Amino acid sequence: MVSSNHENAAGSLAFPKRLWGKIVGFALRLKNLGKDDPRRMIHCFKVGIALTFVSLFYYFKPLYDGFGLDAMWAILTVVVVFEFSVGATLGKGLNRMLATLTAGALGIGAHRLATLSGETGEPILIALFVFIIAGIVTFLRFIPQIKARYDYGMMVFILTFCLISVSGYRDEEVIRMGFERLSTIVIGSCAAVFVCTFICPVWIGVDLHNHIATNIEKLGNFLEGFEDGYFKISEDGQPINKSSSLQGYKSVLTSSSKEEIMANLAKWEPCHGKFRFRHPWNEYLKVGSVTRQCAFKIESLNHYLTSEIQSPPEVRSIIQGECTVISSECGKALKELASEVRKMTKSSAAEPHITNSKAAAENLKAVIRSSLSKHCNFLEIIQAGAVASLLFEVVKCTEEIAGAVHKLASLAHFKNAKPRVTPETQELPSQGAVNPVSGIDGAHHVITIDPSQSLRESENSSPPVLDPRMEV
Amino acid sequence: MVSSNHENAAGSLAFPKRLWGKIVGFALRLKNLGKDDPRRMIHCFKVGIALTFVSLFYYFKPLYDGFGLDAMWAILTVVVVFEFSVGATLGKGLNRMLATLTAGALGIGAHRLATLSGETGEPILIALFVFIIAGIVTFLRFIPQIKARYDYGMMVFILTFCLISVSGYRDEEVIRMGFERLSTIVIGSCAAVFVCTFICPVWIGVDLHNHIATNIEKLGNFLEGFEDGYFKISEDGQPINKSSSLQGYKSVLTSSSKEEIMANLAKWEPCHGKFRFRHPWNEYLKVGSVTRQCAFKIESLNHYLTSEIQSPPEVRSIIQGECTVISSECGKALKELASEVRKMTKSSAAEPHITNSKAAAENLKAVIRSSLSKHCNFLEIIQAGAVASLLFEVVKCTEEIAGAVHKLASLAHFKNAKPRVTPETQELPSQGAVNPVSGIDGAHHVITIDPSQSLRESENSSPPVLDPRMEV
Repeated sequence: MVSSNHENAAGSLAFPKRLWGKIVGFALRLKNLGKDDPRRMIHCFKVGIALTFVSLFYYFKPLYDGFGLDAMWAILTVVVVFEFSVGATLGKGLNRMLATLTAGALGIGAHRLATLSGETGEPILIALFVFIIAGIVTFLRFIPQIKARYDYGMMVFILTFCLISVSGYRDEEVIRMGFERLSTIVIGSCAAVFVCTFICPVWIGVDLHNHIATNIEKLGNFLEGFEDGYFKISEDGQPINKSSSLQGYKSVLTSSSKEEIMANLAKWEPCHGKFRFRHPWNEYLKVGSVTRQCAFKIESLNHYLTSEIQSPPEVRSIIQGECTVISSECGKALKELASEVRKMTKSSAAEPHITNSKAAAENLKAVIRSSLSKHCNFLEIIQAGAVASLLFEVVKCTEEIAGAVHKLASLAHFKNAKPRVTPETQELPSQGAVNPVSGIDGAHHVITIDPSQSLRESENSSPPVLDPRMEV
Repeated sequence: MVSSNHENAAGSLAFPKRLWGKIVGFALRLKNLGKDDPRRMIHCFKVGIALTFVSLFYYFKPLYDGFGLDAMWAILTVVVVFEFSVGATLGKGLNRMLATLTAGALGIGAHRLATLSGETGEPILIALFVFIIAGIVTFLRFIPQIKARYDYGMMVFILTFCLISVSGYRDEEVIRMGFERLSTIVIGSCAAVFVCTFICPVWIGVDLHNHIATNIEKLGNFLEGFEDGYFKISEDGQPINKSSSLQGYKSVLTSSSKEEIMANLAKWEPCHGKFRFRHPWNEYLKVGSVTRQCAFKIESLNHYLTSEIQSPPEVRSIIQGECTVISSECGKALKELASEVRKMTKSSAAEPHITNSKAAAENLKAVIRSSLSKHCNFLEIIQAGAVASLLFEVVKCTEEIAGAVHKLASLAHFKNAKPRVTPETQELPSQGAVNPVSGIDGAHHVITIDPSQSLRESENSSPPVLDPRMEV
């Protein structure tokens, strides 16, 4: 009995404790949410400011007398239109204003037409118009291109048409009503767009731009870390650099719909910073698509880091040298490409790395032909073979990404990088040459790379570099 | 001069022709849009009906006298809330009603509090309340869980709070206003939900269910067609069944966000058909996730159908027998699993196929060990080795999909399949056994499969079959 009382007391204490724990946990989550992207906090302030601003219409009598209760449409518009990014806000605002204008005009026309048919005919005709227009516009919303950019406008179109034509039945001043609705919506939309654009703007185009660069970088990180993950085995037979730090690329696999939404919103944005009005946003989608193709190969490659069936270390060590060169050179090339995108400067810094990786791929084929096939147990080397085969694919994908990035660079008029002509670059060959050298563990190869280039790399991980073919 | 006139005439004729061509093209696209999913046409009718229904409030004087101009909120609500699926409509409707109720109450409270502070203090205090509440709720919208299910409610909350508290400054009957707004919104939401649910409802849960089954099926189709794509070479050296018919799986690669949205909406739906109220929708996401993992492997596999570097046909023919068995058995297993999901019946029809594919994988290892490693040119067999290695992965993935589907089946209380006990099934072993038989082209193996099972397969591609372990 005593112990049961004890338990009850503990239980009654446990509940507030749990509740407190939950509250603290929730507060911590909110804090992290703000920390992850401080622009979120600013966005909240901006919404507050825009709403407080439009509610002035109620407080100041001269403004209120002009619009009356219709001023609430301005508040409603700000709440509905105000989005996180400029592109989304501008898109919604323009959609809303344009749809209100056209649907309002059509609604007034429908109302006039209906009044001609007498008192009994009027509601029937209006109901018919509403049914037909709502049906047609709802169907148009299914067209993918319209859904992507004008869905909100279509909804507002139905809304306004119904409100104007139906309200007209009771309220004779249908034109005044339409005009007031339009003007309050224009005021609300403009307030939202103004605050969103001129107070710490969040450009979704910049976000997309950085998102694409980050994705390419993530693949580069994986490839640079691949050697440690696959070849460097710790004493307990497990790879040293297992998963976690290499798993960043996973988000690339499923980012396609996010990119599409971002590109559609970015198209609404005016010119800002280095982005012109008709910036080639669709090219970003193409770069994103080839990046994802490469991520699929890397997903397969990643599997061999964690696979239970592994080629034994002695087999792996045969291909280690060339595989390391391929993955690290591809990784470097991808990081150079990411930096080219991020800095918006035309650069061919990735080319030597791609050439090196291709040369290493040829060498790897030679190694496989000469050394690996002497190995007696085929089943043991098949995994190593699959890794090699995937690395060949990665080289091809890297070239494709380079092609897509260069096309983006030329269409988006990226600036030329500042030329840095040093005496060495004129004397030495501009690209690394691969010389086979027989090593101890199988057949290792040494890459002799342009010294000016290795110097550059030690100075800065992704600097603007000289492209001999580039017009200065 | 004459020719230039001629050109002008042709040009002036060409424009209406092009325009006509565009109009015809647009009409054809609309027709296909309706043909692809006839529910779209019905949806348009439903929207028309719901809107015409709520606009009755304007036409009938007794109804109009009750609500007055506030009746437009009902129309607005129908337009905004009415979505294609029941889940989306119900989610939006509930969000809207609940948010209006709570925000309305809070708005009235804020208004009362503000009036206590005198005439000059009132607008300042209301502006402060609006700023704070709008800021906090806007921030809450960033929380992923809230964004997924309650984003719309949060928006309506800000909206209603602002409207009620700010309008209260001019309109003294703030309680009446709040009540009318609430009641018209309830009427509009209920009208939308009613029409959406009771006239040809579109259940997003059913769509998700079928989507998951279709995705598994698509992978099955690829695997069943893989033999023709990779091994059967036409006279010009190209695979017979190249790409197009096998590319259905591509959509699986990027369907994750779509599935998440569908699952979130499906959670709003009441019980319908075989789906209970708390149907385990999250399990579908898990099945979708392992399906996508398998699709990534298949994406790599698909690459070898179109790759320029190919193992020569004589090398491929060595592994053809076992690879064909693995891919077709995995394909059959996946199709059985898809049918298990689609028909919502517990079934272990996939198990024998998985067992067969695992046995074939073991045999393939033996083939590789014995025959393939004798082949002199390792570079030529490395592609074949990579294909084999990927097929091993596919077998593993198929097992994982089977596990996820069985878990879904048990959590969603799928019915047991009708037992079909035939004399053969009791006499013969229930699962196929694989016996190695040396063939002409390397080492082919013959699978002896339970005759009753092959009989079943010839009768019906995906029948409910007997599970010996199943409780009858």
